[in-house]
Amino acid sequence: MITHISPAGSMDLLSQLEVERLKKTATNDRDLYQLYRNCTLAVLNSGSHTDNSKELLDKYQSFDVNVLSRERGIKLELINPPEHAFVDGEIIKGIQEHLFSVLRDIVYVNMHLADSQRLNLTNSTHITNLVFGILRNAGTIIPGITPNLVVCWGGHSINPIEYQYTREVGNELGLRELNVCTGCGPGAMEGPMKGAAIGHAKQRYTEQRYLGLTEPSIIAAEPPNPIVNELVIMPDIEKRLEAFVRLGHGIVIFPGGPGTAEELLYILGIMMHPENIDQPMPIVLTGPKESEAYFRSIDEFIGETLGAEAQKHYQIVIDDPAKVARVLKQAMPQVREHRKIHGDAYSFNWSLTIAPEFQMPFEPTHESMAALDLHLDQPADKLAAALRQAFSGIVAGNVKAEGIREIEKHGPFIIDGDARLMLKMDKLLRDFVDQHRMKLPGGSDYVPCYKIAPQS
Amino acid sequence: MITHISPAGSMDLLSQLEVERLKKTATNDRDLYQLYRNCTLAVLNSGSHTDNSKELLDKYQSFDVNVLSRERGIKLELINPPEHAFVDGEIIKGIQEHLFSVLRDIVYVNMHLADSQRLNLTNSTHITNLVFGILRNAGTIIPGITPNLVVCWGGHSINPIEYQYTREVGNELGLRELNVCTGCGPGAMEGPMKGAAIGHAKQRYTEQRYLGLTEPSIIAAEPPNPIVNELVIMPDIEKRLEAFVRLGHGIVIFPGGPGTAEELLYILGIMMHPENIDQPMPIVLTGPKESEAYFRSIDEFIGETLGAEAQKHYQIVIDDPAKVARVLKQAMPQVREHRKIHGDAYSFNWSLTIAPEFQMPFEPTHESMAALDLHLDQPADKLAAALRQAFSGIVAGNVKAEGIREIEKHGPFIIDGDARLMLKMDKLLRDFVDQHRMKLPGGSDYVPCYKIAPQS
Amino acid sequence: MITHISPAGSMDLLSQLEVERLKKTATNDRDLYQLYRNCTLAVLNSGSHTDNSKELLDKYQSFDVNVLSRERGIKLELINPPEHAFVDGEIIKGIQEHLFSVLRDIVYVNMHLADSQRLNLTNSTHITNLVFGILRNAGTIIPGITPNLVVCWGGHSINPIEYQYTREVGNELGLRELNVCTGCGPGAMEGPMKGAAIGHAKQRYTEQRYLGLTEPSIIAAEPPNPIVNELVIMPDIEKRLEAFVRLGHGIVIFPGGPGTAEELLYILGIMMHPENIDQPMPIVLTGPKESEAYFRSIDEFIGETLGAEAQKHYQIVIDDPAKVARVLKQAMPQVREHRKIHGDAYSFNWSLTIAPEFQMPFEPTHESMAALDLHLDQPADKLAAALRQAFSGIVAGNVKAEGIREIEKHGPFIIDGDARLMLKMDKLLRDFVDQHRMKLPGGSDYVPCYKIAPQS
Amino acid sequence: MITHISPAGSMDLLSQLEVERLKKTATNDRDLYQLYRNCTLAVLNSGSHTDNSKELLDKYQSFDVNVLSRERGIKLELINPPEHAFVDGEIIKGIQEHLFSVLRDIVYVNMHLADSQRLNLTNSTHITNLVFGILRNAGTIIPGITPNLVVCWGGHSINPIEYQYTREVGNELGLRELNVCTGCGPGAMEGPMKGAAIGHAKQRYTEQRYLGLTEPSIIAAEPPNPIVNELVIMPDIEKRLEAFVRLGHGIVIFPGGPGTAEELLYILGIMMHPENIDQPMPIVLTGPKESEAYFRSIDEFIGETLGAEAQKHYQIVIDDPAKVARVLKQAMPQVREHRKIHGDAYSFNWSLTIAPEFQMPFEPTHESMAALDLHLDQPADKLAAALRQAFSGIVAGNVKAEGIREIEKHGPFIIDGDARLMLKMDKLLRDFVDQHRMKLPGGSDYVPCYKIAPQS
Repeated sequence: MITHISPAGSMDLLSQLEVERLKKTATNDRDLYQLYRNCTLAVLNSGSHTDNSKELLDKYQSFDVNVLSRERGIKLELINPPEHAFVDGEIIKGIQEHLFSVLRDIVYVNMHLADSQRLNLTNSTHITNLVFGILRNAGTIIPGITPNLVVCWGGHSINPIEYQYTREVGNELGLRELNVCTGCGPGAMEGPMKGAAIGHAKQRYTEQRYLGLTEPSIIAAEPPNPIVNELVIMPDIEKRLEAFVRLGHGIVIFPGGPGTAEELLYILGIMMHPENIDQPMPIVLTGPKESEAYFRSIDEFIGETLGAEAQKHYQIVIDDPAKVARVLKQAMPQVREHRKIHGDAYSFNWSLTIAPEFQMPFEPTHESMAALDLHLDQPADKLAAALRQAFSGIVAGNVKAEGIREIEKHGPFIIDGDARLMLKMDKLLRDFVDQHRMKLPGGSDYVPCYKIAPQS
Repeated sequence: MITHISPAGSMDLLSQLEVERLKKTATNDRDLYQLYRNCTLAVLNSGSHTDNSKELLDKYQSFDVNVLSRERGIKLELINPPEHAFVDGEIIKGIQEHLFSVLRDIVYVNMHLADSQRLNLTNSTHITNLVFGILRNAGTIIPGITPNLVVCWGGHSINPIEYQYTREVGNELGLRELNVCTGCGPGAMEGPMKGAAIGHAKQRYTEQRYLGLTEPSIIAAEPPNPIVNELVIMPDIEKRLEAFVRLGHGIVIFPGGPGTAEELLYILGIMMHPENIDQPMPIVLTGPKESEAYFRSIDEFIGETLGAEAQKHYQIVIDDPAKVARVLKQAMPQVREHRKIHGDAYSFNWSLTIAPEFQMPFEPTHESMAALDLHLDQPADKLAAALRQAFSGIVAGNVKAEGIREIEKHGPFIIDGDARLMLKMDKLLRDFVDQHRMKLPGGSDYVPCYKIAPQS
Repeated sequence: MITHISPAGSMDLLSQLEVERLKKTATNDRDLYQLYRNCTLAVLNSGSHTDNSKELLDKYQSFDVNVLSRERGIKLELINPPEHAFVDGEIIKGIQEHLFSVLRDIVYVNMHLADSQRLNLTNSTHITNLVFGILRNAGTIIPGITPNLVVCWGGHSINPIEYQYTREVGNELGLRELNVCTGCGPGAMEGPMKGAAIGHAKQRYTEQRYLGLTEPSIIAAEPPNPIVNELVIMPDIEKRLEAFVRLGHGIVIFPGGPGTAEELLYILGIMMHPENIDQPMPIVLTGPKESEAYFRSIDEFIGETLGAEAQKHYQIVIDDPAKVARVLKQAMPQVREHRKIHGDAYSFNWSLTIAPEFQMPFEPTHESMAALDLHLDQPADKLAAALRQAFSGIVAGNVKAEGIREIEKHGPFIIDGDARLMLKMDKLLRDFVDQHRMKLPGGSDYVPCYKIAPQS
Repeated sequence: MITHISPAGSMDLLSQLEVERLKKTATNDRDLYQLYRNCTLAVLNSGSHTDNSKELLDKYQSFDVNVLSRERGIKLELINPPEHAFVDGEIIKGIQEHLFSVLRDIVYVNMHLADSQRLNLTNSTHITNLVFGILRNAGTIIPGITPNLVVCWGGHSINPIEYQYTREVGNELGLRELNVCTGCGPGAMEGPMKGAAIGHAKQRYTEQRYLGLTEPSIIAAEPPNPIVNELVIMPDIEKRLEAFVRLGHGIVIFPGGPGTAEELLYILGIMMHPENIDQPMPIVLTGPKESEAYFRSIDEFIGETLGAEAQKHYQIVIDDPAKVARVLKQAMPQVREHRKIHGDAYSFNWSLTIAPEFQMPFEPTHESMAALDLHLDQPADKLAAALRQAFSGIVAGNVKAEGIREIEKHGPFIIDGDARLMLKMDKLLRDFVDQHRMKLPGGSDYVPCYKIAPQS
């Protein structure tokens, strides 16, 4: 089956050089085509609930995409695309937009910026400027708007009660004209957007934003729901995390697994940086009363590893969607005030300091995982950074194509460190397994991709 | 508590004469003020799930509303309004719009039209012109749009599985860029709109219409959800039904109680009129597989009373939301073609013939209910008309303030007629009771407002 | 030639009854059809510079218009329309909108309101409510906007230097985001709109209003330029004048002939009413330096007839477009403040008192013209009213079909009165003739339609 | 005087690095700041009719501009800006947008692209991709629109009759829903836009484009009128010319001086390239009947130098604005068809071949002017290229700051070549002088900036 798709959303015309380089036959860019093709396949796969990227890629081996120049601009030629992206033969408009978001970001990062020698990407300022450049090119940096963007983190594999709860929180956020940013994908990343869509409709709110931030290694496992009306594909996990915290004006964390833990450790590590001491950033951990135990155990883990200072940065709200929304809403004037005083942009938090260990890409391999510095006797923000990397590796081993391949080849990652810390981590991870937070239900039993090294 | 509300939605300025007449102190229009006040209270009560109009009115006896002239137009002064119309002290925008829809329609019907001697309201043409006039004044007659409005009927008191099903049907309608019109209120009148809102969002469909048609005697029991973005208060139940069938391009019927039965009988009676023989009007009865029995028993009742000819006008689809939407979508070109050939408006079906017995207001009293001509030996469309009136009376006795008062005073309505027919009707009504379709759950047990007369 | 025109602008669907009554063959409404047809012909004649209504009607005797019902709403069938309404065979969109404005207003006034017994049209309150009703139905009453509408009056027959000057004033008004309302037609009624269009474009001002108010007896002689984006056909000259002063927030008067004198006398008579003493209403008389003498002679006439008190209500600005605009702009906060304090609408000046002699229609006949009470020994506002009527009659005799017919039959109107007053009036009128302000140039010499009665 | 200006139009936020580099104090970019400051001053100078860039710069030596980071995005701080950019103390919105267009294009060209090593600017493909990149970044490449952009060329110094004529042509273009692109500045570059604005208003055309293309060396002499609603600052004259011919779908040439001659030679040289043989490109030379002689002498010059083949590419229309617009309008389907067949973009003519001699920047110095290859014995397109450069040099010597400085220092440019050709050229240039087409009137007498070398 071959379909031609016209542009939708924020896509401009491409230049002839750009079209050339995206061709499957481009001599020096086979990888670029593969990257582009796989991301395209992932957004077409929206709504199909597998969380195994490799499976997806294996299933649609005959899929291909070509960028064509036409009189009204470019068109995409899709060969053997997944059927569920279409309704009665017509592509869903939201997915159509996502196809062009992928194209836009791949072109921007790989052609405009990557070739330029200007950005020295080991330099923190330059990394931040790159993150800004990608977001600006995607139309995500909107001048003039006041702070109202709530980042929602949480698992892609949550139970129906939790899912319904995320919708209700979304509805309450929407009723207060707050917008929602998530990591795309199902579960806690979808529920708040759907809820907010209803809340926004009740308020006739027309500047609704359902912003999805993803990156090539995760997009296949967590394809964006078509309700996402701004999709940005960041180049890697660290830039995606940086985008979250520089764009968001507040954070809600729902129940989740290791990915959610990674995100919580990331933001705590940053908030504890001495230069961020006066940064207002409301963080709420929340879930239905059935999930209370989960948050208690996370909170305990944080308290015992990063300390009471870390716990001060968030509050836990159980079973009260309106309160969650109210906490966020009421913090917005403070965020606004802080930006105003510091001459910082409402739409991009330049003044937040992010230490290099949170910015530099961490590539989880058996070596890098084993080398993590997991000891309690270090500053809390350093420990947070190391723990963040550990959880990042586990996510990779669970759902990312590359990670799965590594595990298949060499067996589970070995995580080694301080005995007391290892015990706590082991407990938390086992809780995740017990609560089915490692993988989507319906699949086979979870086989851990990691092993806590035996303590000598 | 006193709040001032600014206009939202399609409200124009009022003239000084109009403002005068709406005052509580207007000497010759005490009734007009009461009507206006009660409808206003009803829309403020959105989301509160009582289905007893009288209860609502009793609860908010201290509520008052005043129309004030201000430099930017009129304002509403609300005294002691229900709190749940507000979020953190701000009225929900959707409800704000509804307040002004009420004002608009009350002013139009009671000032502009009622005083005019032009419309002879026992004349069918004039009734239809009045229905048209109200809808046009409300901005509901949109020239230029192509047929895509699906009327959804069904109970306000349905179970969670049925409710979820109505959302899924709504989602599929929305994905096909169909719009939704219901009678407002909870249950099957709310679910399809919420589902469609998500479907429309996925399709970036911006001409979404969630049209609610209500009337003063039902609005308190079935207050519009704020997601309704076009609300029209028709003067009585018959004009509301006429508005449904002249505006809609297709009909979906979900499980429901006597109100839903009334609606089904109404449309069947019309479709069976000889002059409507070539009118294309897709009608789908649908529910989850758990509700299959319900539809079988309705279908049986129709078959045994109105005959196989009546059954040809609808199809039953069980547990297949996408199919429901597809049936409707695929019928639209036919509807369009028919209107085009007959030079009839896409947005108002002038050429549909509605017999006087379906147009003239039926006021359910003990006398009129007892006098219904309920015999099988009459033309099917006549019988449909009489049955429609019977069910209309039962709805009144169940949930309308006036009806409840009547029953409290004089005991249940007596329904009398042909023995065979009475048996079938009794069975159907008892099924409704067993399935909790007579009233919202959570209240006391259902005490029937009617009695089938003993057969001699 | 037959053309079908689709609706544009603010036209809704018509009901079947409304379409019936507009038919040429409608038995009881031959006059209504003629009225409708003639107004339609007039707007199609836009840009053709004749100012003789009778000529126009004679020239297009084969013109006809039919209102047809179609699936997307109504269509107009035009038979033998003037060619210059079309560009390469396509009707100019502005004219297309005007066609439907005519239809809208004819239907509203003649069907909805006229039939209603509610409005007793000898009652001042009811006349004002009718004026409001027509304007509201036309979408001209916009709630929420702040005062910024400048009424521009002046001759349809002005010289190129004056015309260029009106454009420049328009440009300066536009640069200050003021909107323009005129009586349609060429000359001083067109120039300010074209100028404002450029000024608005420079300011990217998108709420531009070029509001044209006309009435059936003048529309043929002063057809609206297509740039008019809101056109309202008021039922007669007095209601049109009332619409001007209740809608406008300030007035600019350019050079003109008897029509302009009528307008100036009208507004001065109203401003001098004791109840309007605190009404803020900036009035500027302005022209290029070449026209200074004109204003001096008008000013003298006013001073000598209505007195110094009348002169206080306006200021004369010569050759300074920016100053004209600045005077208007700077008066707007005062207008706003006054409305706010009095709870009066920004978009309709309810609190302005208009005495009956300015509201009641004056039908100029030989009798009524001879009977005018033209004496200096009466209160200034009464005298203003009588003078207003005298000039109104002269306009009718010059350019209106009815008036021209009267003059052809019975010879010129005789204007009789106080000798001193007659002298002044004669001088002013002769100035108008000398300055070619009575008729458009290019025609034959002006033959006066009036005679000042010889003084005994 | 210091004013702070907020962004308007298509400006995004700037990154911190970008803001840094634009600072007056940026160590390595003094030139960039000067370029930015001078272009900013030029757009502020809109409407002031000097055509001497140097004069302008000298007059506003105390002017300065700073880019500031603020919470809602950047702001511009203007120190001692020209007063006429303001109305009653408020900057004209059109000029405000132009300020940010300047910023946008300076940033794009000098930061994003210039640093990148990707574009080898001696390579024709890369030049075209750069032109495309600048226009795309400016939002000028709009996918999906159909061909309707008419480039209007002509003198900045034309007489009132010619100016009025350009307005009338603009009005007729506007009535046919064609858009207008010019080189900014007064005269023939302003008139068509103003006329089109009125025509568009009559047609309620809301996608009106008044596109101005300029470049740093000409912007001060020909500042954009605020009516320009898309302004792009191309890096040099050749890229500006390329932008004209790749964006435009047809060309109208009004009377003008050497700049207009340059433009005509440019397009003829391109159209005569063998690869462009089937390119549809309507070209109309037009003026009022008073200007007929001008076009005859241009036509003669073209006929005698480039030959009859060149003359086939244009038609001359005298005193018929509607016909001009009709010729353009009627050619659009052909343009569309050609692009469709060749899969070329409607909004950017990729397939037009532009030879290197038309793409490479020509810097007019005494050396380069003297070295021009001005002989009749060469292919017509080569000759057109050389002549184009000669006229380009004369424009520089007349109005550009750099050019004027050169002439002040070293005396007039010497133009040398084939005797017959020199004679024709001398005649044409003398005609320009006689017709006051070299400079704006009101200044001192024109002192030629060139000398035709005496023929040996």
